Amino acid sequence: MGFAQRIPMCLLRILALGAAVTAAVVMFTSHDTAQVLNMTFEAKYTNSPTFKYFVIINAAASVYTLIVFFCPAKNTLGRFLLVSDLIVTLLLDSSVSACLAIGQVGKNGNEHAGWLPICNQVPKFCDRVTGALIAGFVASIIYFIIILLSLHNVFNIFTIKA
Amino acid sequence: MGFAQRIPMCLLRILALGAAVTAAVVMFTSHDTAQVLNMTFEAKYTNSPTFKYFVIINAAASVYTLIVFFCPAKNTLGRFLLVSDLIVTLLLDSSVSACLAIGQVGKNGNEHAGWLPICNQVPKFCDRVTGALIAGFVASIIYFIIILLSLHNVFNIFTIKA
Repeated sequence: MGFAQRIPMCLLRILALGAAVTAAVVMFTSHDTAQVLNMTFEAKYTNSPTFKYFVIINAAASVYTLIVFFCPAKNTLGRFLLVSDLIVTLLLDSSVSACLAIGQVGKNGNEHAGWLPICNQVPKFCDRVTGALIAGFVASIIYFIIILLSLHNVFNIFTIKA
Repeated sequence: MGFAQRIPMCLLRILALGAAVTAAVVMFTSHDTAQVLNMTFEAKYTNSPTFKYFVIINAAASVYTLIVFFCPAKNTLGRFLLVSDLIVTLLLDSSVSACLAIGQVGKNGNEHAGWLPICNQVPKFCDRVTGALIAGFVASIIYFIIILLSLHNVFNIFTIKA
């Protein structure tokens, strides 16, 4: 890979790192309390295994991106990097989808299952979760672009051969 | 791509088709009713937008797999096939993750949010959803293997160069 080809990849890695760190930190620090019938209800990310999974995956993706950024990619390593990038993309995609499903129930509830929406009680928490979800979504989109760029760099996927 | 290389790919596509069709059909036909305090509670996939998404994605992945199976892949098309396979894998991964998150709340509830588990009331529905989730998970794993095999076929990803 030439130097000119490395610049967009480095930029994408920096953006992915920023988005994944933001997602993990915003979800980790999301917090709100509500008083319902003299009971204090505390909303935080540890309340749901899905939110914990989101924090873990986004933190792991941040560490991975940081390691890849500072380790120079040799040609042989570059191929395995494509596979590990693919796994990170799938994990990010999975964490965002799972959180979105839970967030949707938190916002709208589910009348069939008798699950009431909680966002009117803990609006700050819901706003933070929404922010974390957007950052996580951005991180997974950037990783998708990283894979497309890797494929293009390796075998000119978007160049029509004459 | 030679004929010998095509056989494992064809087998994987057939397996992926079987798994995705099973996932979509099992979720689509999942149904159970429960009597709670003289109220009839009916559980079906349309009760949750996440389950609807799961059915749509798995049905779309089945149709896609069928089209790819019967259209002979030319060399130029093969590269775009890799990108479309990647998108299908991400969508399957996303649908399974989202359903797993909702299924987990259905099974264990969430005491912090006051969401009660529903699986003790509609056990047949939960069993069907679990089956659909397993089939969907298998479909996404097979698609992941399809991508690895495509990468290997295109640029010998798992062959260490001398």
